[in-house]
Amino acid sequence: MPDAPLTAGNTRVKEARKLSRRSVRAERRLFLADGPKAVEGALGAGCVVEIFGTPPALEEYAALVATAERRTVVDERALASLSESVSPAGIVAVCSFLDVALSDAVTTARDGSGLLVICADVRDPGNAGTLLRTADAMAADAVVLAGHSVDAYNAKTVRASVGSLFHLPVALEPDPVTAVRTARESGLTVLAADGGGELDLDDAGGILAGPTAWLFGNEAWGLPVELAALADHRVRIAIPGRAESLNLATAAAICLHESARTRRR
Amino acid sequence: MPDAPLTAGNTRVKEARKLSRRSVRAERRLFLADGPKAVEGALGAGCVVEIFGTPPALEEYAALVATAERRTVVDERALASLSESVSPAGIVAVCSFLDVALSDAVTTARDGSGLLVICADVRDPGNAGTLLRTADAMAADAVVLAGHSVDAYNAKTVRASVGSLFHLPVALEPDPVTAVRTARESGLTVLAADGGGELDLDDAGGILAGPTAWLFGNEAWGLPVELAALADHRVRIAIPGRAESLNLATAAAICLHESARTRRR
Repeated sequence: MPDAPLTAGNTRVKEARKLSRRSVRAERRLFLADGPKAVEGALGAGCVVEIFGTPPALEEYAALVATAERRTVVDERALASLSESVSPAGIVAVCSFLDVALSDAVTTARDGSGLLVICADVRDPGNAGTLLRTADAMAADAVVLAGHSVDAYNAKTVRASVGSLFHLPVALEPDPVTAVRTARESGLTVLAADGGGELDLDDAGGILAGPTAWLFGNEAWGLPVELAALADHRVRIAIPGRAESLNLATAAAICLHESARTRRR
Repeated sequence: MPDAPLTAGNTRVKEARKLSRRSVRAERRLFLADGPKAVEGALGAGCVVEIFGTPPALEEYAALVATAERRTVVDERALASLSESVSPAGIVAVCSFLDVALSDAVTTARDGSGLLVICADVRDPGNAGTLLRTADAMAADAVVLAGHSVDAYNAKTVRASVGSLFHLPVALEPDPVTAVRTARESGLTVLAADGGGELDLDDAGGILAGPTAWLFGNEAWGLPVELAALADHRVRIAIPGRAESLNLATAAAICLHESARTRRR
């Protein structure tokens, strides 16, 4: 006879729930991946420590969770306590941190297709996740979340990345200047996305074809002038309409799509 | 001697506060524009009925609010009760609804630069606002929020549009099929953004140069097959990386930027 599902009051469930706090995640170097998409990505990346699931969800995703070493059956309330979703899908994985050293991310880009993404001080977890998803879609080799960026392991970031957090190396670097310098020293041309930049994205084709690192700033105040000045070029997206600027994630999507398009040709 | 600032308990403040509810907005055809950027847009669009502001904010934005017919001084607490922002900027405008008829939006696009945006069933207010901002930036002539789309006058939509809601005509059309048919009948080529589309965006240049309407679907489930089938072409964005799809707002940004780029050349 199988064990009864663990309840929300169970010690293991309570310990896992503490991973919703950034300080606990940082201390244990563990985080939660919520839902089948994230769990699939985490299993693919080999970072799953334990999967919690309700009986129906473990049945529905049986093929998926079969590869996990540790599966724990919990009741609906216990599962909901591990999820920030309004309607939890029924499975949540406890995962090990995945971030790599800055030097590894840069080396991966230099030795790979030569496309690195550096985000300086991105604050909104949803934006960070969307940036990871877009970087992954456009075949970037690695992403650096630099400065006072949002925690890569925030539940909202993991969800908005739709699995992409597990697809490409992510480095966390407190100092954006170090990130930009390291990228340049490794031979990547650093392009700062900057509404007031001197180079129009339309004219950047030749540069985009080579090894490059895109540098994106904060969603509210963009890139600090001193940081943008460290890049090889400051690239603007033409805005023919009346809006003064673009949302960070949409601007990044346009830049990265242009990189991918250039490389296809 | 000036009147004392109105408090949160004042009837006029309380009536304005009710505009945070969609049903009240729909009944009165009024909504709230929060912060200087939105108020500036609303004044430019000539839809401001009344501006509420704290004494310091009315002083800071004196030049801006000078053109408003009715300015009402409120205290900090009253202002905060009208704002959904964590740190309100101190001015909020009560505005008249701005939406135009579907036929007007389509005619504006046909007689303008020939670029219409139709969003079918976009649900997230932030996404809807970002789409408005991107459409405005890329010089679209008008936007149609079709189907069970989010309310264009939701505070989050107004905020995410960063003034763009006031820059271009927006139509609200309950039936996406009617929106697509009306666009086609007026001579616009309808392009459905669809990950499984038969036409690669890279190869759509000739079509993008002509009068077109982009059709974007819901953030979670995309476009219903039957609706995508009504478009002239289904256009896919190449995804060379591992992510299965793109976020709605980023996909729309890539498509609209490509339209704008083609038209510049």
